[in-house]
Amino acid sequence: MTLFRLDASIRAEGSVSRAVADTVQAAWQAEHPDARIIRRDLGIEPLPSTTWATAVGAGMTPAENRSVAQNDAVTLATTLADELVAADAFLFAIPLYNYAIPHHVKLWVDTLLTTPAFTPGATSAIAGRPAVLVTVRGGGYGPGTPREGWDHNTPYLRRVFADMWGLDLEIVEAELTLAEVNPAMADLRPLAAQLLQSAHTTAEAHGRTIGQRLVSAAR
Amino acid sequence: MTLFRLDASIRAEGSVSRAVADTVQAAWQAEHPDARIIRRDLGIEPLPSTTWATAVGAGMTPAENRSVAQNDAVTLATTLADELVAADAFLFAIPLYNYAIPHHVKLWVDTLLTTPAFTPGATSAIAGRPAVLVTVRGGGYGPGTPREGWDHNTPYLRRVFADMWGLDLEIVEAELTLAEVNPAMADLRPLAAQLLQSAHTTAEAHGRTIGQRLVSAAR
Repeated sequence: MTLFRLDASIRAEGSVSRAVADTVQAAWQAEHPDARIIRRDLGIEPLPSTTWATAVGAGMTPAENRSVAQNDAVTLATTLADELVAADAFLFAIPLYNYAIPHHVKLWVDTLLTTPAFTPGATSAIAGRPAVLVTVRGGGYGPGTPREGWDHNTPYLRRVFADMWGLDLEIVEAELTLAEVNPAMADLRPLAAQLLQSAHTTAEAHGRTIGQRLVSAAR
Repeated sequence: MTLFRLDASIRAEGSVSRAVADTVQAAWQAEHPDARIIRRDLGIEPLPSTTWATAVGAGMTPAENRSVAQNDAVTLATTLADELVAADAFLFAIPLYNYAIPHHVKLWVDTLLTTPAFTPGATSAIAGRPAVLVTVRGGGYGPGTPREGWDHNTPYLRRVFADMWGLDLEIVEAELTLAEVNPAMADLRPLAAQLLQSAHTTAEAHGRTIGQRLVSAAR
């Protein structure tokens, strides 16, 4: 059994998305103590920003005519795809940054879409497998709040993971994660603590559920 | 008079967003023959992918303790902000890529938001100035089409340019731009040609309008 885990927070310490993802992972590993974990940390080590365009260019160039940079980009794209194809389950920890997807996650998605396993419009090589998306937001974006509709991240991630790649997707969300450190949000701290506790509870349940689903599928 | 122009297509040749933006620019320049054009081409020269996180780290580090990389990131962010602050009008040419914002444009936005001129939540240094966004999509995303709701790019760009930065924003859109080169879309070529013609007409009108608005403001 293999779990692929993606992290995208640019914070190594104090990251809420990493902490909630740890809860998912621990619950999953409780079902699979000897499982392999494949990790990709885009927050700490983003891909080079030329990767995608270079891989696209390579796709329009006969293999024997490709530049060194094009071959490198294809090799990196293939590595990224292989990491996903090798996994039985997926854990994506992706914060909202500036009201949209982290640029380094979009770059990773774009690069994967250049590979045969993730050709847009075809069934992906990982369709039907279980996945948990952990996504966290510093403020509040619920109905009736001033920032309602400003979360442009979650709808797109759902589009990629569920609609494009066909994953069986569960989502764990936490909001108001900046209340702890932002004095202007001090009044929201009790609510933020409650939302965070709830996120960990949901994370634990989803981690266990996808772990058990794999066990029964394997029997 | 100064126009800032951003390009984001990864194609130097055959790019529809560049062609439609050329029409905006020509109409603007007809009103301001001696104007200065500041150009930033993210499609051909993306920023290094570590720029944003490094600039964020620099913002949390006293100036005298910053690393060379942090100083470089702050210098680049300041250059990007200065390019915008120096302009009287703006032209952004940004295609839809894989149903969302080009990663290199998100990286540019994120990096700008680390500078004092674009601090989130405050009035931006360019609020109230006129801007044209040219955005193009390879397929169709209108009501009733199979990809309705899959354009996750335009709503976010409007959020950034109009809601966050306070620009007086006009949008020029073209769809079905891949019909010319995609055999499966051959039936759509007459419609695509019509949409493209319409985009150029709108582009010309918006370019002239924002050019004339500046003239009357300067009088």
